[in-house]
Amino acid sequence: MVSYADIEEASRRIGGYAVRTPVLTSRQADEDANANLFFKAELFQRTGAFKFRGAFNALAMRAEQGNLTGVLTFSSGNHGQALSRAGQILGIPVTVVMPEDAPQIKIAATRGYGAEIILFDRNELTREALGAELSAERGLDIIHPYDHPDIIAGQGTMAREFLAEVPDLDVLLVCLGGGGLLSGSALTMRALRPQAQVIGVEPELADDAYRSFKSGTLQTVENPDTIADGARTPSLGKLTWPLVRENVNEIVTVSDEAILATTKWIWERMKVAVEPTGALAYAAVRSGKVDVKGQRVGIVLTGGNVDVAALASLFQLD
Amino acid sequence: MVSYADIEEASRRIGGYAVRTPVLTSRQADEDANANLFFKAELFQRTGAFKFRGAFNALAMRAEQGNLTGVLTFSSGNHGQALSRAGQILGIPVTVVMPEDAPQIKIAATRGYGAEIILFDRNELTREALGAELSAERGLDIIHPYDHPDIIAGQGTMAREFLAEVPDLDVLLVCLGGGGLLSGSALTMRALRPQAQVIGVEPELADDAYRSFKSGTLQTVENPDTIADGARTPSLGKLTWPLVRENVNEIVTVSDEAILATTKWIWERMKVAVEPTGALAYAAVRSGKVDVKGQRVGIVLTGGNVDVAALASLFQLD
Repeated sequence: MVSYADIEEASRRIGGYAVRTPVLTSRQADEDANANLFFKAELFQRTGAFKFRGAFNALAMRAEQGNLTGVLTFSSGNHGQALSRAGQILGIPVTVVMPEDAPQIKIAATRGYGAEIILFDRNELTREALGAELSAERGLDIIHPYDHPDIIAGQGTMAREFLAEVPDLDVLLVCLGGGGLLSGSALTMRALRPQAQVIGVEPELADDAYRSFKSGTLQTVENPDTIADGARTPSLGKLTWPLVRENVNEIVTVSDEAILATTKWIWERMKVAVEPTGALAYAAVRSGKVDVKGQRVGIVLTGGNVDVAALASLFQLD
Repeated sequence: MVSYADIEEASRRIGGYAVRTPVLTSRQADEDANANLFFKAELFQRTGAFKFRGAFNALAMRAEQGNLTGVLTFSSGNHGQALSRAGQILGIPVTVVMPEDAPQIKIAATRGYGAEIILFDRNELTREALGAELSAERGLDIIHPYDHPDIIAGQGTMAREFLAEVPDLDVLLVCLGGGGLLSGSALTMRALRPQAQVIGVEPELADDAYRSFKSGTLQTVENPDTIADGARTPSLGKLTWPLVRENVNEIVTVSDEAILATTKWIWERMKVAVEPTGALAYAAVRSGKVDVKGQRVGIVLTGGNVDVAALASLFQLD
């Protein structure tokens, strides 16, 4: 299991490698919500997303043990980039299995960090099956994108930094795919700020975690067609599901329309090029899915790896 | 005339109202340039551009003197927004004359700050002529977008803040339309960091300042069709021209292709939604128009007020 002590260890390990990302504010956003909003800009993290925290933590733990054997992962994008960059820094070879319809910008960036890329057709096989096969063939350990204790511990460092800057948050809103960031964040909040609400935000079109949370039984979703491509994961994991169930206060969903409109708002008004998945948490506020009036609200802008031209062409239809 | 003492006064005046904008860095940008680049993110300034500094300074000076009479300005956008917001904060009515083909997002934002907007056809008359007429009719003082001592002094506060954070800059690159920001920045650099180079960057398609600087005689350009709409000004001003001539080391120009490619690069790699005018200074580095190898280089990302959908549709042609 993962505990807050692992998150403290991870903080030490990533110090000097991960960016201590800034917290942004917007008078307009505060006015619109009638609340004090704080945006943790993880899109300024190395490799453009919070994923670097967990990836670097996982590989740095191996390096500390003198283990520089190659690793393998499957990732729709940001985790693959983050792990590749971490491997490049630490001298650990990284192989990444990615769906062939992943955004071109993410495939190119992952290659740019020196990883070996293996593309597969999402309609023909699951990435887990292919990953297991390759791992066995080549003797590579799998670093799962979210269901891995070292990844969860690394992601938990985000909330620790957030609280160091804004100690008195009443609520923390975190987007949710496989639940790595949400699990780690919730562990940190339970340890340091137990009175705060921790809320996961998921796309309506990929609402497996919402249904799991409501029903108490793990639910899945199959190749959901949401614009929030970082949240297309089929379900919470063996590790993240119990952590989410025990430590998270609520899960809400938002429509793709709200995600797109919020992404555009953040670009135009806050001047940061967030990716749609990274706009999920704030979309819950803008579409009224959470009541934050009068509160001090932490919102995570999780990443900014996006083909800006392709995305903005969708803004035009808006 | 304007001196560095006016800039110090302006710094005091805007303190607590203007944002002390962050300085961003990018490992990739450093690698590409083989230099240490520092990006002053004025796109996070209030009203989305450095212009708030000068506008607030100008109106705060009037307010300090107990003069709350309305003012008028003509502006292709950011100065109009900034002055409107400053007037709204200080209780001074603002009228803005804008070309009717100004970006819709800027017209709407200016209205949102409570200003009265008067649109005109750029092919029929100059904004100066219309401004003078309206000013006389209505008894309103004109706050020129750049050729005004209080504006120049306000813009000079940017470089002062920049040096407070990165004291040992070897060179400062500033984009250039009417020269308000460049004049003020050069005054500050001469006072605080005289050994540094100050370089103005202008679009090739609006190269009046470049030609003025080379020839020693003030040159003009008529309705230039550059994507950098903040640099479409016809010429340097009566105040800014001598300040630029005396305090600036060099002026270089960049093509619209380089501006667009650099804008896209900044969005995708640095995750900040800069407007094309705001990408001018860095475009000079990326297109090799300045040699900065091994140096500590200050670059100003001047603004982020842009219709992201319209702009990104141009990225797609790229």
